[in-house]
Amino acid sequence: MALIVKKFGGSSVATPDKMRAIVQRVLAGKQPGDQIVIVVSAMGDTTDDLVALAKEITSKPYGREMDMLLSTGEQVSIALMAMAFREAGHKAISLTGQQAGITTSDAFNKGRILDIQAQRVIDELKDGNIVIIAGFQGITEHGDITTLGRGGSDTTAVAIAGAIHADACEIYTDVDGIYTSDPRVVTNAQKMGEITYGEMLEMAKLGAGVMQPRAVEMGSRFNVPIHVRSTFSDVQGTMIQEDYSMEIKQYLIRGVAEDKNVAKVTVLGVLNQPGHAYKIFSELADQNIDVDMIVQSVRVAKEGTTDITFTVSRSELPAVRDVFAKIRGEIGAEDILIDDKMAKVSVVGAGMAGHPGIAASMFGILGDNDINIEIISTSEISITCLIAEESVDKAVQKIHDHFFAESEA
Amino acid sequence: MALIVKKFGGSSVATPDKMRAIVQRVLAGKQPGDQIVIVVSAMGDTTDDLVALAKEITSKPYGREMDMLLSTGEQVSIALMAMAFREAGHKAISLTGQQAGITTSDAFNKGRILDIQAQRVIDELKDGNIVIIAGFQGITEHGDITTLGRGGSDTTAVAIAGAIHADACEIYTDVDGIYTSDPRVVTNAQKMGEITYGEMLEMAKLGAGVMQPRAVEMGSRFNVPIHVRSTFSDVQGTMIQEDYSMEIKQYLIRGVAEDKNVAKVTVLGVLNQPGHAYKIFSELADQNIDVDMIVQSVRVAKEGTTDITFTVSRSELPAVRDVFAKIRGEIGAEDILIDDKMAKVSVVGAGMAGHPGIAASMFGILGDNDINIEIISTSEISITCLIAEESVDKAVQKIHDHFFAESEA
Repeated sequence: MALIVKKFGGSSVATPDKMRAIVQRVLAGKQPGDQIVIVVSAMGDTTDDLVALAKEITSKPYGREMDMLLSTGEQVSIALMAMAFREAGHKAISLTGQQAGITTSDAFNKGRILDIQAQRVIDELKDGNIVIIAGFQGITEHGDITTLGRGGSDTTAVAIAGAIHADACEIYTDVDGIYTSDPRVVTNAQKMGEITYGEMLEMAKLGAGVMQPRAVEMGSRFNVPIHVRSTFSDVQGTMIQEDYSMEIKQYLIRGVAEDKNVAKVTVLGVLNQPGHAYKIFSELADQNIDVDMIVQSVRVAKEGTTDITFTVSRSELPAVRDVFAKIRGEIGAEDILIDDKMAKVSVVGAGMAGHPGIAASMFGILGDNDINIEIISTSEISITCLIAEESVDKAVQKIHDHFFAESEA
Repeated sequence: MALIVKKFGGSSVATPDKMRAIVQRVLAGKQPGDQIVIVVSAMGDTTDDLVALAKEITSKPYGREMDMLLSTGEQVSIALMAMAFREAGHKAISLTGQQAGITTSDAFNKGRILDIQAQRVIDELKDGNIVIIAGFQGITEHGDITTLGRGGSDTTAVAIAGAIHADACEIYTDVDGIYTSDPRVVTNAQKMGEITYGEMLEMAKLGAGVMQPRAVEMGSRFNVPIHVRSTFSDVQGTMIQEDYSMEIKQYLIRGVAEDKNVAKVTVLGVLNQPGHAYKIFSELADQNIDVDMIVQSVRVAKEGTTDITFTVSRSELPAVRDVFAKIRGEIGAEDILIDDKMAKVSVVGAGMAGHPGIAASMFGILGDNDINIEIISTSEISITCLIAEESVDKAVQKIHDHFFAESEA
């Protein structure tokens, strides 16, 4: 007897046939007494189609109305999935985000889950239903529909699992687990049996795809074991959990990740006075622009000025330009340089703390391969270098070869 | 300054271009201070497409899940309409049935509106918004989404108009008003400037299309003047209201209607004992089968038996057959005869009470044209004859010619 949340993405529910395949698989794997919650995304390209429809009407992002529109995609999926389960002879009921008790902030298009009152979910499970919940959506305190932004259905699944104290949350994807590096880049990348939340967060933030950081954070907060596994096979995937199983050795390095969605912004000749750096980053924060690496140079080309360099996602560049158009006079900057051909390479591993040699090895490998490091940042469990995009695939392969020759995944 | 509810059907909002046309029209006609609520249906064939999708999964009518599915159609429409108004520079907000405060019975697929708590609608209007409400939907007391069945969006519009005490409810259709008869059948049918709720109800029930009886009943109950008018022109349509304007003469006959969706069921040789007729009609009622005309014959082919004849919509015939398969033994019926090639022709007019000559004229016209009357039923404001479907168009034309030669619409 287990209580399991299973999340299926849009490509897994793209057609009635694919829905039926999920139904068969879920029912085949269900033990007597198991309670099952299913979280689904919109079918196939539905969300893109709805966005295109909105674009025929306006180019402006009316957040509330956009969420009203987009949330219909998941609602269609849950209704059809519930029908498919009932057609297969099992009791099932669909619930919208609102019906599942999911309250979010009122940040339309990127709502944050504030609370889940899951009593209805629990009641429907007790009543013998497979409960099918719309991913990616919730409502504000005022009853307006919100969507949760990128990766929102994963977040819904993990949050629901936390709220109902599920034994695990299974995320079904088109890959069969988390790899030590991107298998498309590093051909000898190895699938991991387990990984900690912290490691996964670093991997995810660094673009290793598969799981959105928000969902992993949610899993960490509520201590929900997350099983990332394949939609297409029954092979065991990767467990994301608080700690490794007792039998498994403590890993030094867990993975090597890359992120190509990086742009470097350099603000030249900022007056080196108190408050100017604050001004820049508070304005960026006001526009919800997520700034990653930051360095302030000590160049003295002009007395009393400094250069500030930081990285953002490439999609944020138009917003960054708007911010600087507004504040440039105030901070006295000479010029803004933007390089959108940058990338990040990182090594991640909860075991690396206290092993300073890892950073040295990484820098040495990059140097041996004539790859220039522009910025370095570190955390307890990762080391990240900003390098040119054109070199990043090579860098990942070389670093992976080095560490995974010594240590197996 | 007026408070107006305007309802646009699916074909009026089938494309972004059509939505823009509505926006332009509504804004062009809006006086300063006017408050406007718009009720819309799903775009074009959306509802049919969703039904087809469900049919790919199951042939069974899972009511709750079907409503979860179908209600998305209107939700897409309201979101896009709100965007279109905002794009045109006017404040607007979309509301689902739930957000508009519409509570219904829990009869899925045919929910009845029980209550409207319209405070949010009123607040949004005060805030300067054009408020766009999803037609055809509401929620049960338990928070489940329901749809209102056929003509549901008209019902939503009139009910909202009643709840917010609107000055009028405008129903935009593909015809420019209510005619003295179906213009496709009776070429010289005339458009009426006004008609009472009671007359309209008789016309609507008798298949005169355009307005659903439930919406008319709702208008009558809350005394909401309903203006049926064309989506494509600014021409004045037909006002449905409690009484005629003072200046307009009292009409004897308002219209001649026909209904081809009629089947006649005859139950032969029912034991003429107390309770058997009750058994038949209570079983039919339990299956939600709406029985219209009823006659019990006094034939004495077999001592102690009688024949019972009634009419139903043709779509109810499978359910009727099921009922009789179940109770036939119990009521001792010899045979069940079904004739699905019947039709009704009716004359309607609040002024006909106290003018017995009208019934005589109608029967005379049918007799002169060799049309056999099978059943007659009358109300305060209508006379209806059941005749063969093949004769009904001719019957309507002849009766219309007779009454509208004497009395102008």
